[in-house]
Amino acid sequence: MAKLKGKTVAASEVEMIEVVLPNDTNPLGNVLGGRVMHLIDMAGAVAAHRHSRRILVTASVDYLDFVHPIRVGQFIILKSRVTRVFHTSIEVEVRVFREDYMTGERLQTSSAFVTYVALDETGRPRLVPALIVRSREERQRYREALERRRHRLAMAKRAHLRYFDKWQPKRR
Amino acid sequence: MAKLKGKTVAASEVEMIEVVLPNDTNPLGNVLGGRVMHLIDMAGAVAAHRHSRRILVTASVDYLDFVHPIRVGQFIILKSRVTRVFHTSIEVEVRVFREDYMTGERLQTSSAFVTYVALDETGRPRLVPALIVRSREERQRYREALERRRHRLAMAKRAHLRYFDKWQPKRR
Amino acid sequence: MAKLKGKTVAASEVEMIEVVLPNDTNPLGNVLGGRVMHLIDMAGAVAAHRHSRRILVTASVDYLDFVHPIRVGQFIILKSRVTRVFHTSIEVEVRVFREDYMTGERLQTSSAFVTYVALDETGRPRLVPALIVRSREERQRYREALERRRHRLAMAKRAHLRYFDKWQPKRR
Amino acid sequence: MAKLKGKTVAASEVEMIEVVLPNDTNPLGNVLGGRVMHLIDMAGAVAAHRHSRRILVTASVDYLDFVHPIRVGQFIILKSRVTRVFHTSIEVEVRVFREDYMTGERLQTSSAFVTYVALDETGRPRLVPALIVRSREERQRYREALERRRHRLAMAKRAHLRYFDKWQPKRR
Amino acid sequence: MAKLKGKTVAASEVEMIEVVLPNDTNPLGNVLGGRVMHLIDMAGAVAAHRHSRRILVTASVDYLDFVHPIRVGQFIILKSRVTRVFHTSIEVEVRVFREDYMTGERLQTSSAFVTYVALDETGRPRLVPALIVRSREERQRYREALERRRHRLAMAKRAHLRYFDKWQPKRR
Amino acid sequence: MAKLKGKTVAASEVEMIEVVLPNDTNPLGNVLGGRVMHLIDMAGAVAAHRHSRRILVTASVDYLDFVHPIRVGQFIILKSRVTRVFHTSIEVEVRVFREDYMTGERLQTSSAFVTYVALDETGRPRLVPALIVRSREERQRYREALERRRHRLAMAKRAHLRYFDKWQPKRR
Repeated sequence: MAKLKGKTVAASEVEMIEVVLPNDTNPLGNVLGGRVMHLIDMAGAVAAHRHSRRILVTASVDYLDFVHPIRVGQFIILKSRVTRVFHTSIEVEVRVFREDYMTGERLQTSSAFVTYVALDETGRPRLVPALIVRSREERQRYREALERRRHRLAMAKRAHLRYFDKWQPKRR
Repeated sequence: MAKLKGKTVAASEVEMIEVVLPNDTNPLGNVLGGRVMHLIDMAGAVAAHRHSRRILVTASVDYLDFVHPIRVGQFIILKSRVTRVFHTSIEVEVRVFREDYMTGERLQTSSAFVTYVALDETGRPRLVPALIVRSREERQRYREALERRRHRLAMAKRAHLRYFDKWQPKRR
Repeated sequence: MAKLKGKTVAASEVEMIEVVLPNDTNPLGNVLGGRVMHLIDMAGAVAAHRHSRRILVTASVDYLDFVHPIRVGQFIILKSRVTRVFHTSIEVEVRVFREDYMTGERLQTSSAFVTYVALDETGRPRLVPALIVRSREERQRYREALERRRHRLAMAKRAHLRYFDKWQPKRR
Repeated sequence: MAKLKGKTVAASEVEMIEVVLPNDTNPLGNVLGGRVMHLIDMAGAVAAHRHSRRILVTASVDYLDFVHPIRVGQFIILKSRVTRVFHTSIEVEVRVFREDYMTGERLQTSSAFVTYVALDETGRPRLVPALIVRSREERQRYREALERRRHRLAMAKRAHLRYFDKWQPKRR
Repeated sequence: MAKLKGKTVAASEVEMIEVVLPNDTNPLGNVLGGRVMHLIDMAGAVAAHRHSRRILVTASVDYLDFVHPIRVGQFIILKSRVTRVFHTSIEVEVRVFREDYMTGERLQTSSAFVTYVALDETGRPRLVPALIVRSREERQRYREALERRRHRLAMAKRAHLRYFDKWQPKRR
Repeated sequence: MAKLKGKTVAASEVEMIEVVLPNDTNPLGNVLGGRVMHLIDMAGAVAAHRHSRRILVTASVDYLDFVHPIRVGQFIILKSRVTRVFHTSIEVEVRVFREDYMTGERLQTSSAFVTYVALDETGRPRLVPALIVRSREERQRYREALERRRHRLAMAKRAHLRYFDKWQPKRR
């Protein structure tokens, strides 16, 4: 297992583009938050698949902000890149941009950090290749990923003790 | 504006149920993370609409965890309730459960905190009614919402300085 | 088989809520009848699953009325409850309401009676638990279900003699 | 208004064919009842539009039976024809068939009677052309449509008195 | 294999009708080209299935023109018929019409030629029945299909030499 | 109008990636031809929008070949680039690749040439910027685009004389 060769950030980077159709919008003509979330999950998953070449499940989403609306008549561009791996999990940063098809203007509208867990065919977690970070920015994102992970685990622990653990499966 | 009458948590609580169809799943038969995210956004938005009776936009999603998979042949149950309001924004907790349609067994699979901003017809933020919290649990969630908000704003500030602010609209 | 324990109406009652998206509407902005029918089938099926915990097929729909339109910008609320069981089939009443998200006003827009048949894994009909009816209203719906069934069978028989039976499978 | 020229049954008859895709099915591979209902509404609406050339709303569905399942790998064929008009409403019979794409075998799987109301641009009911019935079968369906209407109105009246009228709009 | 009985053009002709819903359109209210292409593929496939009663894959699309737009509030009518078979492949002509639901006016908006290949369960090409052409028009389309095929093969060969052959599978 | 500045091929190149979901496939697990066509139209339209910054309609599709199937569990990658402009129309080449998410293997599965027409707000054709071609390959595609256009116009003319022109709008 130790023999898994590391991969660079660039080796799994993804850029997706989607055309906003009426079906993706709320009655005001803005893209639904839930539609953007679905695309963020897809864009993040492609990067994580390219890094790991494994079956993946989405484990968590954090710091997802919607700063500007995206409207009918604009393109949605998603850029995703792996920021760090933790044995069997992969954190991916996904940034979302809108591009106006008439003016060409682009603006970042969202960003998010999505974590995936790699599984084998029987559903057990599997090691993923190490991430080779090179540039100053890659190293900074790598360091911050650890902070995010610690905060996430601390919060999850509190939440689990409070909400999940009291809750028992029951039949109805 | 000060005359907006407060509303209780119970007044806007929501329970949604969805049947998992093949279209909602990945090739392994598990519900897609992005599909669950879309439903979380819908369930949270209904609670926020019931509390505010305003036009809303999704502003952020945090602490979204996927702890157990949901499969074809199970129901997705979503429960959402307002945890706190901050002048023009509303934090909603959304919990996700799966219910097996053959055994009736239920299990919490996800939880998330989604924040919505209330707008008037011209797109400017509008005050929303205060939240009346009564039970010990409601008061606890209310206090923790402030912590979450502070952490979110701190992170957003760092993220904005780093990623958004350097980035300028350009034409292509 | 006689040992199947009866279940109350409350044990399987369902409330669903859906947000009307542009995709659900006709060019006038009203929800499509066919979309409401799909939701009625889903809401009825959840109640029938909760009562029977069996594989189910939809057998018939009757007395489905559309009294008021539902528009973009409104929620669709569906309430379903078992009205009677007949050995292997389950009649469910589904009522549909619209809730305006700005005013909170609610109005019943449709009702329907949907009958499901419970099957085992090989596709043969299976007995379902008896329905325990308690309130005066539950007993009334229970009695009327028998009338509806008789009318349905009488009509089906006529229809079958006329349309189905004359019609023979053929190859083209 | 009396000058609206009558139209024959043949002038508005419709035949639709749909390919069953995985998205249309339940986890067992059978087409969802709600999907068939949506197609029935579409097929009936096309016939009613061709007869009336008016804006239409679906008013009611009756005697909808599901006699045989339709599976992935089969075509859904829908045939609809106007059976009678009542001033501003149009009753359409819709029959559903499955056609196996490998064997070519066809079998009727459902039938239903759907009633549409014709509206003008302001939403008020409008007269529709009379139906010219010629064959013995067309005349028989025409006579039976009256029976169905009477039964429907009688049931609707009871249902309205019981369920709808007691229910008052309320704010939440 | 030589015993496959020929079939007439009429034996596999298809007419489909679809109602344009908001989800099928671009922000200007016109049906998306890609939506029409999907329907052309479906309509062509039904005719090819009826002719061959085989598993089919779409092999190519040619001469697809969009001459007039189709708008929300119109029906899409597709007519498809087999024009010629070449051992294991079937060329189908698909014509697309719009029908205005208020005026009844019909206009051809597109036509295309789609070629399908018949396969057995293991994915190998299978012979399909010969096409029996009778009318002068059927014979003309039959002759022209050969021209189209020759042009297609000539172009495909050039394209393959240029684009496909230089391109080698690689791992990323 | 003559002042429209030319744009290079690179200025409007597009790469899209899509995850194949069960809903995109036929019962054998292969992506539907019609789904790929829809994506080709989207990918081609983005390139044409980036070149023209105009409202566009799809005018024709040619030489669309499906050489290899794409399956559930693979990514669809589309690459589109403008090959030539003709006053108000833009020809775009779209190439389709599959990428296996477990092995990373990539293979070209389709290519097509799609032509779009640029319109102003009133629906009249508008001039688009000239295409600046630089590399030997860009010049070759540019020359061949003229051949394709001539063949397309010749075929369209024959087809129109034969099929479209005889056909007159009629009311039904």
